[in-house]
Amino acid sequence: MKVLRDRIIKEGAHLGNGILKVDSFMNHQIDSQLMREIGKEFARRFSDLAATRILTAETSGIAPAVSAGMEMNLPVVFARKHQPITMAADPFREKSVSPTHGNDVELIVSSEYLTISDRIIIIDDFLATARTLHALVKLVRHSGATLVAVGAVIEKVYAGGRSSLLDLNVPIEALVSIERVEGDKLIFNEPAAV
Amino acid sequence: MKVLRDRIIKEGAHLGNGILKVDSFMNHQIDSQLMREIGKEFARRFSDLAATRILTAETSGIAPAVSAGMEMNLPVVFARKHQPITMAADPFREKSVSPTHGNDVELIVSSEYLTISDRIIIIDDFLATARTLHALVKLVRHSGATLVAVGAVIEKVYAGGRSSLLDLNVPIEALVSIERVEGDKLIFNEPAAV
Repeated sequence: MKVLRDRIIKEGAHLGNGILKVDSFMNHQIDSQLMREIGKEFARRFSDLAATRILTAETSGIAPAVSAGMEMNLPVVFARKHQPITMAADPFREKSVSPTHGNDVELIVSSEYLTISDRIIIIDDFLATARTLHALVKLVRHSGATLVAVGAVIEKVYAGGRSSLLDLNVPIEALVSIERVEGDKLIFNEPAAV
Repeated sequence: MKVLRDRIIKEGAHLGNGILKVDSFMNHQIDSQLMREIGKEFARRFSDLAATRILTAETSGIAPAVSAGMEMNLPVVFARKHQPITMAADPFREKSVSPTHGNDVELIVSSEYLTISDRIIIIDDFLATARTLHALVKLVRHSGATLVAVGAVIEKVYAGGRSSLLDLNVPIEALVSIERVEGDKLIFNEPAAV
């Protein structure tokens, strides 16, 4: 996705240890037009899966998942990190680790919105170690729903998470893949100039 | 906004103590098409304010704010409750209280994305006690930016928050206003049948 790759080249910053800052357009400030394009690209890649719901995790997964949902005419469920007082009893729960905060988090989804007849696309902002994605996959399994695809806006190939997802036997799509970082320079797995 | 009011009547649940559950279309599962209409309605009401950015708070403000941003071609900044490792030093901070979790929360915005030349629309899911909205207003003030409007998807008139916002002298818009609750019944401030 060239427009996204160009934006990462222009505004993304490598903070060291493989940590990528994309706060100016994705994870703190959101470029709403870019986010619309991200949704369209997910829709293009996932259009023939007969999905019934998109599942994501708060916080940074919400914007890309909702944008994809708008394009695909699908409801979006976001796993919550804390159980609000409005949530029904006995939700599905899975432990994960926050990649940008470092602490253990629990992801919680009400059984009202993940059901055995669902066909689920999981969408998140990053595919890095895939710990959040694995927690979402487990939530899908708890519900008995069928996982049909996993999508991430940006893949950090160097974090190695993709290999752990291959056993799922579903399409794993990243809109942009960063092969590795060399100092301040991000090396993409496709040529930046198209 | 009739489509939203109808949906609240159909699926919203009063859990007691004025707490409204709208988890099936807004705060846990998101109806992406309804969210698109919510964005269009905010855009219609706020189109002539020459706004430069929309400010909201994670988590449930993100979807309506991004939808409005898509329609108004504006970037959206969401205040974070925890400072991620990617955030620049010395962000703006304000204390608030989570209405659905009950605990104290801090709202944090990087000074990179709220500047003195900005004209800010604040959008959140609920206008109830207005504590979150006041924290967002204070973040705008810290930055020196100009607040031009406040929008909420649903107003709980019975929670009384609006009166505390009137001194701001900006438009305060709620897409649907619930005057009061009588047992299980929600009383809207407009006739439900239009």
